Amino acid sequence: MDKTEPDTGLSFERVVFFSDAVFAIVITLLVLELKVPHLSEHNEPALRGALIELLPRVAGFVISFLIIGLMWIEHHRIFRYIADYDAGLLWRNLFLLLCVSFVPFPTALFSENFWSRTAFILYTAIFGAVATVKLLIWRHASKAKLLKPNVTPELQRRIARRSLAVPLACAGAIALSFISIWVAPLSFMFIPLLARLLDRTSKTKTEAPAVSAA
Amino acid sequence: MDKTEPDTGLSFERVVFFSDAVFAIVITLLVLELKVPHLSEHNEPALRGALIELLPRVAGFVISFLIIGLMWIEHHRIFRYIADYDAGLLWRNLFLLLCVSFVPFPTALFSENFWSRTAFILYTAIFGAVATVKLLIWRHASKAKLLKPNVTPELQRRIARRSLAVPLACAGAIALSFISIWVAPLSFMFIPLLARLLDRTSKTKTEAPAVSAA
Amino acid sequence: MDKTEPDTGLSFERVVFFSDAVFAIVITLLVLELKVPHLSEHNEPALRGALIELLPRVAGFVISFLIIGLMWIEHHRIFRYIADYDAGLLWRNLFLLLCVSFVPFPTALFSENFWSRTAFILYTAIFGAVATVKLLIWRHASKAKLLKPNVTPELQRRIARRSLAVPLACAGAIALSFISIWVAPLSFMFIPLLARLLDRTSKTKTEAPAVSAA
Amino acid sequence: MDKTEPDTGLSFERVVFFSDAVFAIVITLLVLELKVPHLSEHNEPALRGALIELLPRVAGFVISFLIIGLMWIEHHRIFRYIADYDAGLLWRNLFLLLCVSFVPFPTALFSENFWSRTAFILYTAIFGAVATVKLLIWRHASKAKLLKPNVTPELQRRIARRSLAVPLACAGAIALSFISIWVAPLSFMFIPLLARLLDRTSKTKTEAPAVSAA
Repeated sequence: MDKTEPDTGLSFERVVFFSDAVFAIVITLLVLELKVPHLSEHNEPALRGALIELLPRVAGFVISFLIIGLMWIEHHRIFRYIADYDAGLLWRNLFLLLCVSFVPFPTALFSENFWSRTAFILYTAIFGAVATVKLLIWRHASKAKLLKPNVTPELQRRIARRSLAVPLACAGAIALSFISIWVAPLSFMFIPLLARLLDRTSKTKTEAPAVSAA
Repeated sequence: MDKTEPDTGLSFERVVFFSDAVFAIVITLLVLELKVPHLSEHNEPALRGALIELLPRVAGFVISFLIIGLMWIEHHRIFRYIADYDAGLLWRNLFLLLCVSFVPFPTALFSENFWSRTAFILYTAIFGAVATVKLLIWRHASKAKLLKPNVTPELQRRIARRSLAVPLACAGAIALSFISIWVAPLSFMFIPLLARLLDRTSKTKTEAPAVSAA
Repeated sequence: MDKTEPDTGLSFERVVFFSDAVFAIVITLLVLELKVPHLSEHNEPALRGALIELLPRVAGFVISFLIIGLMWIEHHRIFRYIADYDAGLLWRNLFLLLCVSFVPFPTALFSENFWSRTAFILYTAIFGAVATVKLLIWRHASKAKLLKPNVTPELQRRIARRSLAVPLACAGAIALSFISIWVAPLSFMFIPLLARLLDRTSKTKTEAPAVSAA
Repeated sequence: MDKTEPDTGLSFERVVFFSDAVFAIVITLLVLELKVPHLSEHNEPALRGALIELLPRVAGFVISFLIIGLMWIEHHRIFRYIADYDAGLLWRNLFLLLCVSFVPFPTALFSENFWSRTAFILYTAIFGAVATVKLLIWRHASKAKLLKPNVTPELQRRIARRSLAVPLACAGAIALSFISIWVAPLSFMFIPLLARLLDRTSKTKTEAPAVSAA
């Protein structure tokens, strides 16, 4: 069967392209959650006050944007090493996109109910889920021999280790949220540090170009 | 005329690209149907209750997402074998995208009225329509000699047979809905089984790579 | 200056890609105008009645979708022959996309006020504007020598002639709307006929493949 | 590490593609701010009146569209000269997209409150921020040796100088807004003139092709 199947080179690009489009749409839809305040009269201080009240939501928008951006960069990073795909990769990737496309809901929920631990946990869990599915994609690609020939076993391990950073940070944030939901988001700030700790190889002088390429 | 027409290689990619973009937008817009509950007071159990009430809609979102994902994979699958296009393919593909872009409406209708047989039938009919138009695209591509040279007649038949799975499952679901709309959605779960039954050739040991590529 | 500029091959694709993305988003956003009816009780006949009342809007959605699809195919058709671009082409194309991205507004206006001649004229004028700008793009590409070397002067004229079909049909529809807005939309059905009349060369036996490629 | 990393050629395209998709979505979402007037009765003059009242918002839509279009052209222009990327470029570009994706909010705010200096300043500041980040991207690409080998130092300086035009025009508009917010938008009309003044090299007879390519 395999030999009769034409190899187009287009198909894998379509998977990557489709994923990029979903990321781009989700990251752009986030801003729609920022509802413009309606004022009954032309009153400059009232408008400024309404905008200041919006600041927590703007912060939520910026944080969600940056986290989805980070997810996209991570997706970008692992797909750079993938040469081929199979049904397993396709479905895992679709499941990742399902989680990504769900992000606007917990973002909106949390930005309207930023007092709520439930909202915070849902918000954090979805990001943790995306990162976990990404790790599953990488593991599947490793096992199913879908990686490019020059991806060394060491690089496979490094990326798998790095990929634990976001799930761990999310688990940490959920745990912290039972102490205080104001402290919990700080956990996200440890993602770069965690990634570096988990992937110690990058702590060499070749680290800067490695980050750009890996 | 034909000889004076430059062959760019870009054009067919644009058709595929445009289709991918429409699929990506529709699959991402689905989540907008999940309206965040508005609470009058800061009440954690009330929020949790409101979220639990949303669960049927979340299920609808997930199901619609996965069905559109399946449609995209199917589109992907058949376009992998298509080498060229003509006006007939372009219009059939546009009609398929019309059906796909309509999906958010029956999804929203059904998720707000999940008691309604009418809503369920409309929801199911649109997915059946997409799958039927996909079959028409494949048949047109076969007849109009738009397939790649190494697509064997056997593969043409196999894909045509497989492509009957979704229309049949949708017809089954609509029929079952007259008994009970709670039982009817189960019909969708038979899609993989139906596809396998209709395309018996894949029941060989080469099946796993064939699914990944075909 | 020209010689020091690297030629990437990427840039013109980006223009085409960006245009495709805008078309895809606009064509997909149209369905958001179809608001799901909200029922106070679980009543199957009431739901069916509400859906039947929506039929004019669904028709509007389908018509807008098909017209934007036609515009995209036309855009596709002319850009297939364009080899390069300059600032003039970029801005004309951006102006075309401005008109295309405006389409959801008159579509929503007209689908909510399908009794209104003003809404119909605005709706028709925007489609006429898109088609007119497309003609301006083609003329600019002809004059500024941006076409591929094997585009014959005859083909240039044929496409320019064909491109008059939509503006003429829109002008006809606007004129007819002063008689009756129910009769006016029929004018759009003459677009394929007009295109064929304006481009008589295609009335040969090579017409079928020419349509697919041109 | 660097040598073991496969070079796909896909990755940089993905960065460009992702950026294009975000620009395309934002530019298309703008029209959603134009809410269709709801009339209680079928009244042609009332509809016309409501549309005339919408004109300031339509103007806002057109202006935002054209400014985002200009930003996209500028993005297009600088990325044409970039051959590679690193983490710094990726994050700067993501920050640019964050600013771009935020545009619908100040556009909606300003189109609803076009009397407000605060709204105007926010609207202008966001465009200034996009242009400033673009300049930072260019500087980073220059410093980090990410440009194509045939990009001359002179061209690097010219583009850096031209890139000051939008931030300067925005600063001018914000300053003018303290005199009158009706006069301030005129500042945007000086962008092409400013770009030309800042990049005097282009005032030669090679200017026309240089604009198209650079």
